[in-house]
Order: sequence, then structure tokens, then C-alpha cells
Amino acid sequence: MARVSQEHLDARRRQILDGAARCFARNGFHATSMQDVLRESGLSAGAVYRYFSGKEEIITAIAEEVFTTVRGAYAEAVASTPPPPVDVLLPAVLDRVFTHTLGGDDPLIFTRLILQVWSETLRSPELTETLRAGFASLLGLWTELITAYQEAGLMPREAEPTQIARVLIATAQGFIAQQALFGDVDPAAVRAGLAALLPTASRPHPA
Amino acid sequence: MARVSQEHLDARRRQILDGAARCFARNGFHATSMQDVLRESGLSAGAVYRYFSGKEEIITAIAEEVFTTVRGAYAEAVASTPPPPVDVLLPAVLDRVFTHTLGGDDPLIFTRLILQVWSETLRSPELTETLRAGFASLLGLWTELITAYQEAGLMPREAEPTQIARVLIATAQGFIAQQALFGDVDPAAVRAGLAALLPTASRPHPA
Repeated sequence: MARVSQEHLDARRRQILDGAARCFARNGFHATSMQDVLRESGLSAGAVYRYFSGKEEIITAIAEEVFTTVRGAYAEAVASTPPPPVDVLLPAVLDRVFTHTLGGDDPLIFTRLILQVWSETLRSPELTETLRAGFASLLGLWTELITAYQEAGLMPREAEPTQIARVLIATAQGFIAQQALFGDVDPAAVRAGLAALLPTASRPHPA
Repeated sequence: MARVSQEHLDARRRQILDGAARCFARNGFHATSMQDVLRESGLSAGAVYRYFSGKEEIITAIAEEVFTTVRGAYAEAVASTPPPPVDVLLPAVLDRVFTHTLGGDDPLIFTRLILQVWSETLRSPELTETLRAGFASLLGLWTELITAYQEAGLMPREAEPTQIARVLIATAQGFIAQQALFGDVDPAAVRAGLAALLPTASRPHPA
């Protein structure tokens, strides 16, 4: 029996997830059948079921990938020292999320997938747990950053970092929704709007 | 033939929409059948089809009601003169949206319905038009308010009001998503987070 390389296994798994993602972004989880996923990924049932037991497992894998991607976009954006101000950071995260096309040519696929994951989460206790864990991890990262801003005197020290972090995550979530729904969110315009609202983001806060 | 009062017609329509909303918030639009709507609203098929031709028409009516409610919450919040600062206004709008339970006892029903409408919009050109019109109207209201803030010296005059308005709408949308998904958004905490980020919201902006 031929030995199958890890690379080959990964590529196959990728092919299934990308095909499924295209179906889900277009029609939602509910209106998508395993038949649709097979057709879109160009693989046989035998090949697909070797990787995933069914649609639910594919949905969970995609939801986890959504969080890995968003976290990755965030990690890339804060990598510079000192971390960029909020009005630079948030549009940079959005830009990375918006340009993640899963190898396809639909520029809205990833934001649409996020909206589908949210909606599906309302009906699935497992997905709620995945989302809760992903959200907690993102909140932890943002809270660390807010604390760093506070220590640098860029945000008021008396404020609760988690509360500030949740406002910023909400803003990012809202723009993801606007992009999925209308496709017209321009990260440069987001930056201009934030800069007008958040003077402390780019200027030292009076101690 | 007995004359049916407008009041009776309205109450009947309300009964259908509330029953449908409960089904949709719980299971999404797709997994809900007209049978489910009949059962939940406690009405016969004959009664329901007198008001709506089918599920699509009910979904559109509910999407329109979502916008009317959000606009109403906003209108109520800005009614005072001068309008409240952003860190007071935005949590007040959220509070009104969060407490809109469509007469039932599920405190998350309305935010969950909003998420379902977003997700359904990705697949429906008609709903996209409804949402686009609703969003444009909300954006117009917020833009007016931002202009008033600018004229009062509370926000930088050189900034584009629409860009600021979109950031604030995004923040509200994100908190609606967080509430639908996790049910733990506290408008008082939102206010504290906003107040820490937006010093110009409550203090005069240097001219």
C-alpha cells in the first residue's frame, strides 16, 4: 500500500474545507448538503468521509478556522513594537480578514462565512462552546494590548481593560457584518472614522 | 357578514409575526416551516394565509420590523435636547433593542432575530434591498447627529460625518452580535468602555 504523505493529507483536507466554505458562504449551512460539498470540492464521498464524519464536523472545523484566521490577523497586526495605535490596528485586522479568500475569487467569502457561523451558533450548543472559547481568547489578547496602552499613558488607567476591549471587538464585528452584507467597507475610511473618535489612540493621554 | 375591526386585524397580524419570530429566533429561517409558524401562533392556515402569502413575506415583514424598532430606539434616545453624548446614546439604544422581547419571555429573541436576518440576507436579493434601505436610513440619522456634535465642537470638524457614523453603527452591531451569541452584554459596561475610549464624547473638543 502506497504511503500517503502528510502534505497530501493536508492538501486534501484543505480542498474539502475550501469547497465546503464556498457552499456555506453562498447558501448557508442549512441549505447545503453533503452532496453539494462533494460536488464543489470535486472529491468522492469515500475521500471526504475519510476526513470528516459529516456536515457538523466540517462546520466545526470551519468555525475553528475562522477564529484561527482572525487571531492570526490580530497577532500580525500587533507584532510591531510598540503596538500600533487603535485607529491603525483595527483597520489592519479588518484588511487581513477581508482579503482572506480561502484561495478562491469571492472577496466576500470569509466575512459571509463568519455571519453564517454566528447564525448557526444560535442553534448549536457545540458551536456555542467553540465560539465562546474563541471569543475568550480574542478578548484576552485585546485586554493585554489595552493594558499596554494604559501603561504607556495612551488610555485612562482607571478604566476596566476588558470593557474597552469588548467595545473594540464589537466595532470589528460590526464592520465584518457591514462588509458581508454590503461589501463596501473601506479600511482607510474605518481608520479615518476611528481617528476622529479616538484622539487618545494616536496622542498621549493627559496623565 | 360581521365587520372585522382594524384593531382585530392588527392583533391577528401581530400574533402571526410574534409566533414566527419565536420560531425564527430559535431555529433560523431555513429550519422553520409554515407548519411551525401555524403551531406557534395557534392559528389555522386559512387565517395566516389571509395575511401573508408565505414564509418569504413573513421574513420581509420581520426584517422591516427589526429596522423600525432599531430606528425607534435610536429616535427615542436622541429625543432630548441637546442630544446625549455618544457614550450615553449608544448604550441607551442597545438597552432598548435588548429589552424588545416581542411580548414573549425570551430576553435574547430580538438580537437573535437580527443575526438571522443578516444571515438570510446573504441569500436573498429582496432582503438585501430591505436591509440596504434600512441601513441607509440609520446612517442618515447618525450622520445628522455627528454633524450636530461637530457644530457643537464635540467632534473634530474636519472629519467626514459618515465615516464616524459607520464606526458607531458597527459598534452597536457588534454588541448586538455579542448579546445574541453570549447573552452577557451589559449596557452599563458598554458605557464605561466607550467613555474610556471617547473622551470627546463627554468633554468639549479643543477648537
